[in-house]
Amino acid sequence: MTEATRSDGPRELSRADFPVLRRMNTRWGDNDHYGHLNNVVYYELFDTAVNGWLIDTCGDVRDLPAIGVVAETSCRYLSQTSYPDVLHVGVGLDRRGRSSVVYRVAVFREEPADDLGKVRVSDTPSAVGSFVHVYVDSQTRRPVPIPEIVAAALESITQR
Amino acid sequence: MTEATRSDGPRELSRADFPVLRRMNTRWGDNDHYGHLNNVVYYELFDTAVNGWLIDTCGDVRDLPAIGVVAETSCRYLSQTSYPDVLHVGVGLDRRGRSSVVYRVAVFREEPADDLGKVRVSDTPSAVGSFVHVYVDSQTRRPVPIPEIVAAALESITQR
Amino acid sequence: MTEATRSDGPRELSRADFPVLRRMNTRWGDNDHYGHLNNVVYYELFDTAVNGWLIDTCGDVRDLPAIGVVAETSCRYLSQTSYPDVLHVGVGLDRRGRSSVVYRVAVFREEPADDLGKVRVSDTPSAVGSFVHVYVDSQTRRPVPIPEIVAAALESITQR
Amino acid sequence: MTEATRSDGPRELSRADFPVLRRMNTRWGDNDHYGHLNNVVYYELFDTAVNGWLIDTCGDVRDLPAIGVVAETSCRYLSQTSYPDVLHVGVGLDRRGRSSVVYRVAVFREEPADDLGKVRVSDTPSAVGSFVHVYVDSQTRRPVPIPEIVAAALESITQR
Repeated sequence: MTEATRSDGPRELSRADFPVLRRMNTRWGDNDHYGHLNNVVYYELFDTAVNGWLIDTCGDVRDLPAIGVVAETSCRYLSQTSYPDVLHVGVGLDRRGRSSVVYRVAVFREEPADDLGKVRVSDTPSAVGSFVHVYVDSQTRRPVPIPEIVAAALESITQR
Repeated sequence: MTEATRSDGPRELSRADFPVLRRMNTRWGDNDHYGHLNNVVYYELFDTAVNGWLIDTCGDVRDLPAIGVVAETSCRYLSQTSYPDVLHVGVGLDRRGRSSVVYRVAVFREEPADDLGKVRVSDTPSAVGSFVHVYVDSQTRRPVPIPEIVAAALESITQR
Repeated sequence: MTEATRSDGPRELSRADFPVLRRMNTRWGDNDHYGHLNNVVYYELFDTAVNGWLIDTCGDVRDLPAIGVVAETSCRYLSQTSYPDVLHVGVGLDRRGRSSVVYRVAVFREEPADDLGKVRVSDTPSAVGSFVHVYVDSQTRRPVPIPEIVAAALESITQR
Repeated sequence: MTEATRSDGPRELSRADFPVLRRMNTRWGDNDHYGHLNNVVYYELFDTAVNGWLIDTCGDVRDLPAIGVVAETSCRYLSQTSYPDVLHVGVGLDRRGRSSVVYRVAVFREEPADDLGKVRVSDTPSAVGSFVHVYVDSQTRRPVPIPEIVAAALESITQR
């Protein structure tokens, strides 16, 4: 059972459960021998979405005295995606502790534009996962409290 | 809670819990901005270990009428590793169903050779995870029973 | 000396030399130990840009009886880029033969939006390279003529 | 024309032209949509071989006041390789300047063991390329002379 799926089945989660959505292109090399996105690539997208949202919201978090290192991740793959799909990666907050943050993450496929050229994004996730950051001192790598600027950003995406 | 850690804490697992161990080099590009192996890379190693063991044991499983697609993965990161570390990836069987196989996977760091040139491998995992294959028809991608040749290989690594 | 730089120095090439420009995000894991985009990643971007342009222009070229396999690539790195930079990958035609196509490729950094929110893209490449496709029969993998639909697409980006 | 192929055609180079050979495994995700090693992966191998050899020979070169950043790379793909192939990456010195080093690099496929269990490595490269390091001050990133310890290592692999 992944963190993201404890209370809700992953198939029950929809786009509305993710306050942050970040659009990303796929790459030729993302497809594996079977012609679909390799399972590993989803974690590249999660990493990129969480850190990208943090950097956009808080400035360059990599230069803070406390950095977020990844303590646990998981992913359930629900339907195939394939290069050159465009994907939207959802990020939400599952819960936070003193040093740790559990994000709920998901991938939604962008659907071909309709006749009016309007882009639509699937409501149903292709994959759902969890992504856990633990904040550590950038020198000693010992756990420290979540930096205030990050805590404020998390507050802004708290689910109600 | 990951599959691999349901009954035992991940720190309690040791090398002896993994009947298959596959030695792998790391790559320069595996290290990320923080100078350690990016969390994503562990999944590349798991994928490589499970499929490599299957191919060594069963022949080229990619050409079977039923192929294993990845339905769920997870990883807990316990201690850092970094290029140019040499790693040993452990594979064990957690449980199997009609169509699905849940592998227990882990990464163990090779330690520098001692004075006699003997290579040692850590007993304590750097990371522990789970890796779930679901067998599907290679054309229709609908679930099918685990191929017999794979079932026999799984039998050979069943934990007692 | 790379293909792309034979006649012009790579620093002399500018955005106007690339009839195709494709916008791409970078990923957290693209940065290496030194905190900038790993040299390898540029090739992922080239691959993605050339094939993405072909697929948009010709339909799914992977299903044609003749497929383009990569015979040679090169890249000169002129200035650093780093996640979370947004990059624009340029594609142009250097020359074509019976079976082969030599593309000129480059990476341009998107600059922060100005006060009016207008996005600008650097005129000066961060990297310039070449990318050579040879068309082969998808079954025998022997060289064959460039498919007509690809030849027509190449015609449309011929430099004058 | 790549650096590595200026004087000799790449097909004329053989294993004996590479004083350093480093054995590496491939990874499941290295194969692309066409079922062979993606062209990009060869650059991961080159990077890993050059830096791995430097670290084994000189200690951790990443901590020196002068670091080698990659200024240019190229690769010609001569024959396919595919996961789970084991590869041997060759490194040789093409020439060196005050700040820069041009390595000749290549990939050789390990062939299946013969009846006596003896591993053989192909004499004919699957790919041949070049890899150019320019040494820069790790802080200012301005070119500086090649560090003495690196110069001594290069001396040891000079072709005669």
